[in-house]
Amino acid sequence: MSSRFDIDTAATEVGGGLYQAELSAGWNVGERPNGGYLAALIARTAGKAVAHPDPLTVTAHYLRPPVPGPVSIDVEIVRAGKRHSTVMARLEQEGTERVRMLATFGDLTAADGRSIVSAEPPALPPLEECVTGRAELPDGTVVAIMERFDIRFDPATVGWVAGRPSGRAEIGGWVRFADGREQDPWSLLVVVDAQPPTTFNVGLMGWVPTVELTTHVRARPAPGWLRVWIRTRVLAGGYLEEDAEVWDSTDTLVAMSRQLALVPTT
Amino acid sequence: MSSRFDIDTAATEVGGGLYQAELSAGWNVGERPNGGYLAALIARTAGKAVAHPDPLTVTAHYLRPPVPGPVSIDVEIVRAGKRHSTVMARLEQEGTERVRMLATFGDLTAADGRSIVSAEPPALPPLEECVTGRAELPDGTVVAIMERFDIRFDPATVGWVAGRPSGRAEIGGWVRFADGREQDPWSLLVVVDAQPPTTFNVGLMGWVPTVELTTHVRARPAPGWLRVWIRTRVLAGGYLEEDAEVWDSTDTLVAMSRQLALVPTT
Repeated sequence: MSSRFDIDTAATEVGGGLYQAELSAGWNVGERPNGGYLAALIARTAGKAVAHPDPLTVTAHYLRPPVPGPVSIDVEIVRAGKRHSTVMARLEQEGTERVRMLATFGDLTAADGRSIVSAEPPALPPLEECVTGRAELPDGTVVAIMERFDIRFDPATVGWVAGRPSGRAEIGGWVRFADGREQDPWSLLVVVDAQPPTTFNVGLMGWVPTVELTTHVRARPAPGWLRVWIRTRVLAGGYLEEDAEVWDSTDTLVAMSRQLALVPTT
Repeated sequence: MSSRFDIDTAATEVGGGLYQAELSAGWNVGERPNGGYLAALIARTAGKAVAHPDPLTVTAHYLRPPVPGPVSIDVEIVRAGKRHSTVMARLEQEGTERVRMLATFGDLTAADGRSIVSAEPPALPPLEECVTGRAELPDGTVVAIMERFDIRFDPATVGWVAGRPSGRAEIGGWVRFADGREQDPWSLLVVVDAQPPTTFNVGLMGWVPTVELTTHVRARPAPGWLRVWIRTRVLAGGYLEEDAEVWDSTDTLVAMSRQLALVPTT
């Protein structure tokens, strides 16, 4: 319990499925907590209420951005079944709901070993050829969450830092926690949302507010570096999707996420 | 209101956000209503409770399969905002919750015209070279939902009908309603889930129970044929994803969905 992630996603039950927690400013993007951090906090809290150990599919709808400080999380067990448990949760701050979550939990180690995989990990350059992530954006925005991670970007995807966006709405790199904590299914919920928006690479430098983020945790990650790749294929009609894939050090796909977000206005 | 889809997704409010509806057997796969049909019914019902016209992102968690017959749908408005409305809904049958939905609505026509699209429609053979879908599977299962649609499969993706699965967990084709009804955002919620499972093409002929299905409706579809492509890239650890993309006759991506499903046991 000494890692920043564990401390900052801890919650205390106050009875009747109601929990209290403190949003840390350490996972902020500018003034606001990152959406993946909120999802991880809510899911980890909801996970306390069910017998199944792993979050399999977690959907968060972002209603109004909270600020760092105290929040309450209200957990409703929708169904506690043999194979799965489904949970709904509300994150509230100052009497106003900020995030609504719907998630199903299970046991990622319960299945047989059948495997048919056509996806492949991203072909990243070696670590030493990658670009270390920094907490300050070109426009001066401080992205505190970047300090929680050791991120080494594929140089082809961070040309926007120097005003040379690639033209492809993709970003990716090697990721681990800065404090050495190994990954688990909870932390993957923030990893999928912890990189700069893909839209920086198509010349849109504004904020990309998430409407909804769904993450599938597909396996418990092995120790070591993760590889993350995030791609936007359709930006149109005011919305875009960001699809993230996360692979572990054994070449196992450990998480797949998709978010629907608003096209930035700048 | 004379189309089968409109009739079979109609619901009547009985007060206080509670609606009654009748699950039709016409959208069954075997004995059970198709998950996309359930999502469309619940979303269309929830849509009555909000001012925004279009379902943007709809997540359904399938708790226990219902059977054709009466159901109730309980709708809670989570947030009614200026740009978006978020709604939660429960589908119950015989006093037991069967599906929980969380969805955000908006207006797909409200945005400016900025568009950056790298995705492309599937390269399907012409209609006359495609294979008309049939309601009976090789094992004798009757798939009533196939009769609601006129589906023309890419022949490369239906070799399993003759015992020659392609080895690629993909399926796709041309789709429209059999009764001539044009598509809209509601019907896309069933279109994304109305094809046989991708797993038939990797030799797994069993049922693929959906745990969770999230659909993003990205544009109102133009009249005419849709093109649908569904792909599974990772089947492992007891679960698989099915990613569907739906394109309209103007080459616009109109829906993107992903479901998490159980690997069939046979």
